[in-house]
Amino acid sequence: MPDFLDMAYKEAEQGMLAGDGGPFGAVVVKDGIIIGKGHNRVISSHDSTAHAEICAIREAESALGTHDLSGCEIYTTCYPCPMCLGAIMWARITKVYYGSTSEQAAAVGFDDQAFYRAFLTPESNQLVSMVYDDNPTSRLLWQKWLELDDRKMY
Amino acid sequence: MPDFLDMAYKEAEQGMLAGDGGPFGAVVVKDGIIIGKGHNRVISSHDSTAHAEICAIREAESALGTHDLSGCEIYTTCYPCPMCLGAIMWARITKVYYGSTSEQAAAVGFDDQAFYRAFLTPESNQLVSMVYDDNPTSRLLWQKWLELDDRKMY
Repeated sequence: MPDFLDMAYKEAEQGMLAGDGGPFGAVVVKDGIIIGKGHNRVISSHDSTAHAEICAIREAESALGTHDLSGCEIYTTCYPCPMCLGAIMWARITKVYYGSTSEQAAAVGFDDQAFYRAFLTPESNQLVSMVYDDNPTSRLLWQKWLELDDRKMY
Repeated sequence: MPDFLDMAYKEAEQGMLAGDGGPFGAVVVKDGIIIGKGHNRVISSHDSTAHAEICAIREAESALGTHDLSGCEIYTTCYPCPMCLGAIMWARITKVYYGSTSEQAAAVGFDDQAFYRAFLTPESNQLVSMVYDDNPTSRLLWQKWLELDDRKMY
């Protein structure tokens, strides 16, 4: 096991024992150095988005002063849930090392697999009802965005 | 257009004009009252996870002092990206009103569609390389989790 994954496990156990949330940890590494680490804090932070990967990414980006983690790797104790995999994509991280599977997480009661099923078969998504309200404000907003002089993409 | 979606558009435009990030806004509503609002702050916060929906969910959960937004609705200016749809699921929000489509977002340069494709066909995911490292620490951690006396699920 790479040392970085071991660090992620230590982070996970500390957080779990402190009652911060589930048994999940992650570290973000750039050029062989840990620049962000995190563990699940859903319970202690009253924040359903405070998963280990999200916390580690936010810490890394804060440390580097950028929203772009291109060239970094993330080591996480468990296969990322859809939210965290999306976060990894937006952070432009292209390599993920993970220490256990979604099946193992499901076996101890975490819902990732049900969420992935809802993503894979959107037409059978029973978790969230999506209601589209087509309206002119939307097109006006896109237009204003395209006309902005100092528009920054991410 | 419902008034709540209009509020989300106002939030989006304010954020965009302030240079905080892309033209996206969202509000979380419980029993007809806005309990959280947010706009994209990826640029100003150096935080790739600071999408409108995530910001609105975090504000709502902080206001209520819980990670569980069951019974709430979210109004968002654009169809949620995979990260935000995952966040909506974890927050246990079951109804999403959205004002424009992923196709419209793609037309002005936002990558959501490519991300969704990577989710729908994981075997052809060229965005992120996933490396599984099976190891005993993982099983030990799950075991410790299951043996915790005050284990809280979310």
